[in-house]
Amino acid sequence: MATSSESSITRNRSGDSVEERDHVACEEPLEIRVEGNSVAIVMRTPGNDEELTAGFLLSEGIVLDRRDIFEISQCPSQAGEQGNVIDVLLTDSSRLDLAALTRNVFTSSSCGICGKATIESVFQRFPPVTGDFRVAAESILKFPQTLRAAQATFERTGGLHASALIDASGEMSVLREDVGRHNALDKVIGYALMNDLLPLSEHSLMLSGRISFELVQKALSAGIPVVVGISAPSSLAVEFARESGQALVGFLRGASMNIYAGAGRISGAEKA
Amino acid sequence: MATSSESSITRNRSGDSVEERDHVACEEPLEIRVEGNSVAIVMRTPGNDEELTAGFLLSEGIVLDRRDIFEISQCPSQAGEQGNVIDVLLTDSSRLDLAALTRNVFTSSSCGICGKATIESVFQRFPPVTGDFRVAAESILKFPQTLRAAQATFERTGGLHASALIDASGEMSVLREDVGRHNALDKVIGYALMNDLLPLSEHSLMLSGRISFELVQKALSAGIPVVVGISAPSSLAVEFARESGQALVGFLRGASMNIYAGAGRISGAEKA
Repeated sequence: MATSSESSITRNRSGDSVEERDHVACEEPLEIRVEGNSVAIVMRTPGNDEELTAGFLLSEGIVLDRRDIFEISQCPSQAGEQGNVIDVLLTDSSRLDLAALTRNVFTSSSCGICGKATIESVFQRFPPVTGDFRVAAESILKFPQTLRAAQATFERTGGLHASALIDASGEMSVLREDVGRHNALDKVIGYALMNDLLPLSEHSLMLSGRISFELVQKALSAGIPVVVGISAPSSLAVEFARESGQALVGFLRGASMNIYAGAGRISGAEKA
Repeated sequence: MATSSESSITRNRSGDSVEERDHVACEEPLEIRVEGNSVAIVMRTPGNDEELTAGFLLSEGIVLDRRDIFEISQCPSQAGEQGNVIDVLLTDSSRLDLAALTRNVFTSSSCGICGKATIESVFQRFPPVTGDFRVAAESILKFPQTLRAAQATFERTGGLHASALIDASGEMSVLREDVGRHNALDKVIGYALMNDLLPLSEHSLMLSGRISFELVQKALSAGIPVVVGISAPSSLAVEFARESGQALVGFLRGASMNIYAGAGRISGAEKA
């Protein structure tokens, strides 16, 4: 499945225009159906759709491990289409709580929605991480080059987010790319789920961009204790990581990083 | 409403750690209720929430102009909370089609979901742009500095997306920032709706980041004929703009830009 497509463009440089061919990152809708019900339309880069689906189901709390999934199958491509519908059968179909999946039935009792309530509602589905996994600061400094070396499509299009798992020895276990940063992470944790690697209690997660609340939450759903990004985290991502027991590292650039949460999980970063 | 908050972090540089204070971009949930129904939870940077709501309602096709909105009101802040619920009353409550808003009732007849069908479904709600609005290439080259000069929080946190309207004379009409790029754009088009500026047929849209399908679609809902970003568009964004009559410019950097669609709307970019 292509992650980028060619497109003819007009390149204008200092007023002069030329017609050129350029690569753009593929974006296509994927409809996820569970037990015959359409539960989501995801705008994603085609490829690894089963993983994307498994990761989505995990982070939504619909499945906890591989055995909860009976089958994931993609509708065959039709003329001019790309197999943009995926069907999931659950081992126990009663696990599907359609109401909980529907955003518009989210209920809050009053004006009571806030960051704190949001964090607490996540912990009802996914407990904070425990365990004493630590990673060396000098090992983290090598993550960006590991990511970039493997990130093929980004180089061509500049348009894909990447998400990668790094194991305790600093080796990359899996990397996935997507136009959507959430999708790239769903593919990674879906890969782990399909390969029976959960919980990922001895892994770090490396993200190519900014770190939102939702990304740290998805990492927790897979039990990932260390989340690292090359750019800025949001306030709620930081608050969440501090309560979830996850380490959160941002602005990983050159020989420098900012540790926003869980500094105890980063060895060699003790205060001077 | 603060768009960033201070946080204590550990800054590690070449192995040495120091405790510092740092600014992070605010992210909080906002619940949007229409006629008493919770229709969405948006993770956003607090501020301009009425605009965000108005823009969301416009791009979802629930309202078409200001007169369709009877009232937008924010639940008052309670102790420790930030007024994260917003209530909307419509002038004609029958305009609210809850089923259409619910992602999981999206139906496609077979395996028929694809980029082309997605584009066509948008055109059923928002017609392609007409009119002969053109903007000079040399004017577009100045957009990034206009944006950056006004983008206050980004400088402090590195964590916010920006979205801005530029009028026909090259002046910025409005700029909004958010942790979510869709939110920043919803705030901009919501501002335009609340100020009776729709359709924005003489405006360009400047985006701080990558250009997805959904962003170009939202721009169309406000009638914006020219969409410009400093980074890469996706394949579906390009395909959409080519069919919607919008110009799409990406990789606007220095004296260079790539025109992916609607080159006829960019004067001074004719082929040499």
